[in-house]
Amino acid sequence: MHSAVEIPLSMLLVFTSAKLLSELFERVGQPGIIGEILAGILIGPHLLAWMAPNEVIRILADLGVMFLLFRVGMEIKAAELMRVGGTAMLVAVAGVIVPFAAGWGICTLWGEPRIESIFTGAAMVATSVGITGQVLAARGLLGTRAARVILAAAVIDDILGLIVLAIVSGLSRGEMNYLDIALTGTLALGFTAFVAKFGSRTAQRVLPRVGSRMHLAEAEFAVAMTVLFALSVLAVYAGVAAIVGAFLAGMALSEATRSRARDLTHGVAELLVPFFLVNIGLQFDPAAFTSSGTLLLALIVLGAAIASKFIGCGLGALRMGRTDAARIGVGMVPRGEVGMIVAGIGLKTGIMSQAIYGVVVFMSVMTTMVAPPLLKMAFRGETGAPAEEELPRIG
Amino acid sequence: MHSAVEIPLSMLLVFTSAKLLSELFERVGQPGIIGEILAGILIGPHLLAWMAPNEVIRILADLGVMFLLFRVGMEIKAAELMRVGGTAMLVAVAGVIVPFAAGWGICTLWGEPRIESIFTGAAMVATSVGITGQVLAARGLLGTRAARVILAAAVIDDILGLIVLAIVSGLSRGEMNYLDIALTGTLALGFTAFVAKFGSRTAQRVLPRVGSRMHLAEAEFAVAMTVLFALSVLAVYAGVAAIVGAFLAGMALSEATRSRARDLTHGVAELLVPFFLVNIGLQFDPAAFTSSGTLLLALIVLGAAIASKFIGCGLGALRMGRTDAARIGVGMVPRGEVGMIVAGIGLKTGIMSQAIYGVVVFMSVMTTMVAPPLLKMAFRGETGAPAEEELPRIG
Repeated sequence: MHSAVEIPLSMLLVFTSAKLLSELFERVGQPGIIGEILAGILIGPHLLAWMAPNEVIRILADLGVMFLLFRVGMEIKAAELMRVGGTAMLVAVAGVIVPFAAGWGICTLWGEPRIESIFTGAAMVATSVGITGQVLAARGLLGTRAARVILAAAVIDDILGLIVLAIVSGLSRGEMNYLDIALTGTLALGFTAFVAKFGSRTAQRVLPRVGSRMHLAEAEFAVAMTVLFALSVLAVYAGVAAIVGAFLAGMALSEATRSRARDLTHGVAELLVPFFLVNIGLQFDPAAFTSSGTLLLALIVLGAAIASKFIGCGLGALRMGRTDAARIGVGMVPRGEVGMIVAGIGLKTGIMSQAIYGVVVFMSVMTTMVAPPLLKMAFRGETGAPAEEELPRIG
Repeated sequence: MHSAVEIPLSMLLVFTSAKLLSELFERVGQPGIIGEILAGILIGPHLLAWMAPNEVIRILADLGVMFLLFRVGMEIKAAELMRVGGTAMLVAVAGVIVPFAAGWGICTLWGEPRIESIFTGAAMVATSVGITGQVLAARGLLGTRAARVILAAAVIDDILGLIVLAIVSGLSRGEMNYLDIALTGTLALGFTAFVAKFGSRTAQRVLPRVGSRMHLAEAEFAVAMTVLFALSVLAVYAGVAAIVGAFLAGMALSEATRSRARDLTHGVAELLVPFFLVNIGLQFDPAAFTSSGTLLLALIVLGAAIASKFIGCGLGALRMGRTDAARIGVGMVPRGEVGMIVAGIGLKTGIMSQAIYGVVVFMSVMTTMVAPPLLKMAFRGETGAPAEEELPRIG
């Protein structure tokens, strides 16, 4: 049971501090999104201590990233994403192998136990597409070729991350069921491919008919929300993250939704996305770095996390030219909440020490913080390209 | 820690069942809002058992009723509400005394202990204005004279309810600090009157200036949310419910907010209000009525709850004519979550037995269920009064 003030007070502190710092960053020409994450660090337990992570914020953060990906999906046509599938697959695979090897290698050289090193590698695998999606959406760049590859690669990346997680979990228990892992991977891939391929067509056929027959006020919005939540649930059951389902739902609806339902969805996202961003900042804990050794390791891991994704994904996209390869490499850098989830499992099962957990959380928060300015640099000169734009076939 | 599926699954079950039953009710010409409450009873632990009340739903329900009252407030001009202040005061006072006396009297005659009887009376005092507000808003009737009196009376009612609660809590502890109670009441009244009187003027002066100077996307929405959360927090500190603050915030912004920010707010309310309604239904527990005696008492209390508010508030508004008096009497009937909160305190402190708690919850849910059709009857023939205010229909 919460006290009566907990909910409105959490709303006020999180939302308002996020918007204030976002405004400040926009004024000095920096991406507002960094301001919102910084707001979390600022009001969090280790600086002002106005707010600690709580249930209210966590639930709204989870919903926030769902709506963020849903909104990003709504700007993407499924057919356009499928067209870059080949390149995206290369980007995703290289973007999993290189960071995993880097994380594992560094920790092993540092003298950490074998299993802990593998877990650190696994925590460096999964890209958090929310940050990149938000930056690109805010600048009207979702229609670019590079943005599409990033989004498609991030979805595949999530499936690969799932398989990596299944493998390391098996390792940690000392038992490995390869059939199980193969089935899990196949189900996740099958679900994603199926919705991406048939979702949009189905929605365009079914939605207008359903919407026009309903008596409910704002029926189209109600249907859109139902699709969003249903696909998020199915995604979890299929083994991928709820946000992949949310992204697929947005994409399925992207050509079937009119502006009224879009505006209403936009309102929800405007309210909830700051909770996702602030919640990342709230996780930041400088207290983990009690020894200068740990701090040094954290900086090395951070450098490796940035470099390995940039190089891995960049190489995967090299046939698109160096400009786009660099954009894609940068876009895949943020690890956000995904790395923290893996590290959380490691900590809970006793595989990861508190120090290494702190290193991974630091890496997750910092890769997320550096991505927006890097993206701004990488996309310099590119102005918002309308989604309609006809593009050459790739991959 | 929740499992990954809990949040999207709660969203899907609650939102979609609410909208499906709302659609069903609209189709047969009944208020959709009853369908949404029924959805909670249907999927709740005692029928289909698909869903039990959980943290996700409770938090979203609390936010939902805040946004509901905020949205209702946005359709009301403060000056118009102040104009009906005298009548509203009469309605509120009579609407507190008569139900309190009825609840106390019935339980005493039934042979319940003195303090439990007083608590039951207290639980019958506070009107839940959310339901009435939603019904009137959905039918475009917020501009009517009766609607304004209902809203003003509900705000005063909340303050009186606070004082009653302070008194019965004191009684339950066996100590009564009259000075404390007087101070609490004065602070609550002062806060409410102050915001109602000066909020709108201040917002009209400050908001356009702030909005035009901000670099943030959707700056006006961000400011509106900040006002909403800030006044909700202040309301709790002043001793009234957060939703009173939300209503006052809406009213303060009603003449200073443009349609874009309204649409975004509307989206949030569309998503969250069903959680408030379904959560009421989820509380319904027929298991409380193990004996036919308890069921009989529940029906008597329910009848008294409806009649006492109708008579008390109707008498208070009699000088407005019998039609409006009946409308106001009916509009004040729903007790919604407020009665349940009082009963919850009674149960937790051991003053109320499980059986009487069940009776109060039954009364709260049922008064909420009967209000929409009664309102429909009472406002028959009245069509939405847009007049000068070109307000969008909500609901």
